[in-house]
Amino acid sequence: MAGEGDLKVLGVWTSPFVIRVRVALNLKGLPYEYVEEDLGNKSALLLSSNPVHKAVPVFIHGDRAVNESQIIVQYIDEVWPAGAGGRPAVLPSDPYERAMARFWAAFVDDKVGSAWTGMLFKCRNEEERAEAVARAQDALETLEGAFKECSNQGNKPFFGGDGIGLVDVVLGGYLGWFGVVNRIIGRRLIDPARTPLLAAWEDRFRAADAVKGVVPEDVDRMLVFLEKLRTLGPYKPE
Amino acid sequence: MAGEGDLKVLGVWTSPFVIRVRVALNLKGLPYEYVEEDLGNKSALLLSSNPVHKAVPVFIHGDRAVNESQIIVQYIDEVWPAGAGGRPAVLPSDPYERAMARFWAAFVDDKVGSAWTGMLFKCRNEEERAEAVARAQDALETLEGAFKECSNQGNKPFFGGDGIGLVDVVLGGYLGWFGVVNRIIGRRLIDPARTPLLAAWEDRFRAADAVKGVVPEDVDRMLVFLEKLRTLGPYKPE
Repeated sequence: MAGEGDLKVLGVWTSPFVIRVRVALNLKGLPYEYVEEDLGNKSALLLSSNPVHKAVPVFIHGDRAVNESQIIVQYIDEVWPAGAGGRPAVLPSDPYERAMARFWAAFVDDKVGSAWTGMLFKCRNEEERAEAVARAQDALETLEGAFKECSNQGNKPFFGGDGIGLVDVVLGGYLGWFGVVNRIIGRRLIDPARTPLLAAWEDRFRAADAVKGVVPEDVDRMLVFLEKLRTLGPYKPE
Repeated sequence: MAGEGDLKVLGVWTSPFVIRVRVALNLKGLPYEYVEEDLGNKSALLLSSNPVHKAVPVFIHGDRAVNESQIIVQYIDEVWPAGAGGRPAVLPSDPYERAMARFWAAFVDDKVGSAWTGMLFKCRNEEERAEAVARAQDALETLEGAFKECSNQGNKPFFGGDGIGLVDVVLGGYLGWFGVVNRIIGRRLIDPARTPLLAAWEDRFRAADAVKGVVPEDVDRMLVFLEKLRTLGPYKPE
């Protein structure tokens, strides 16, 4: 196995999927080299490391590449498990709890992910955007119920319980773009009236040490990036 | 934890996703009760066990339900791991090999899965069917390359090496419907000329003890089922 010093992430600073991987590495206290990719001119290393999807994030561990954000997060949790060096667990150890975490993480990418592209990239007018916002908020309402269960009725701070877990990093990856949505629609997408536990979760997640500096907060800069993405043609989520 | 005798699968006999779960249970040598669901009139147990997606398969272990086929297969592999009672592993033990298995399993559901619905449920004419067949065969060609690597240049019988693993059950779940496609297009979708290793894999997978009686072979009966599905409205894969 390669040494811990040989870790590299190929990413794009706005990508929900890249953010997940970076937060997971920060949670584990693992130093890594971050390489910003240009989606209009991807590096040879990216293309050779992820020949099937040619997409970020790519996680390079020594001479091996791992692709797909949720798979990378699980890989990191398996290679650097809880306990050793005081590292936290990202997935629970109990198989049923693991299955539930995977279920909600898949739900986020399915329902929140499709609404996210609908709100920002695929909508052709305000009506279509409003429809995608409604879908996102419906999905968030379902997640409010899941959070209630995972957090013992809101008595724990995260989906992962006392610490940030798989569902937290998967949902939390979208928060940068949610800030852009908030600006565009003039209110919080994670509505404190409709989903109060999730709204409080958002504040806690953004403030966590492993997250600060990784989830983008500069909405103006993201709006500039959004315009640049539009010049690259139909957006494929990455 | 519930006893091993309290296992139940809520399914539909044609479903690729249900077939995966049944093959995994057979591989582990675990007896289970199989309950056939009527997609036009789902049982109260199904609706209460999978309130989010209301879809098969549902795996019930004692008083707990696990949903989503790939998550169920991993749950089964974690609760009944390799070794105990001579049970085989479904996922490899090495984290990198696990990540690769998860990557190709996700690829199958992404590319083969979308082509599958395109070939049988969403195509409105023969031109659209041919386009979906082409997409399926492109994805299968990529999988031929993956199989070559996983099987040590075809020297091992399965994606999982000597035994059936995650990618095998995920791809193998589709073989019943591939039989229907073969009938409709008048040739083998897994083309022995274009993807010879996969064509040989298909024969081996269909003949495996854990698979026989689970992957449907009766194409006439499946065609009747296909007509019934069409009366239920737009098909959502399950």
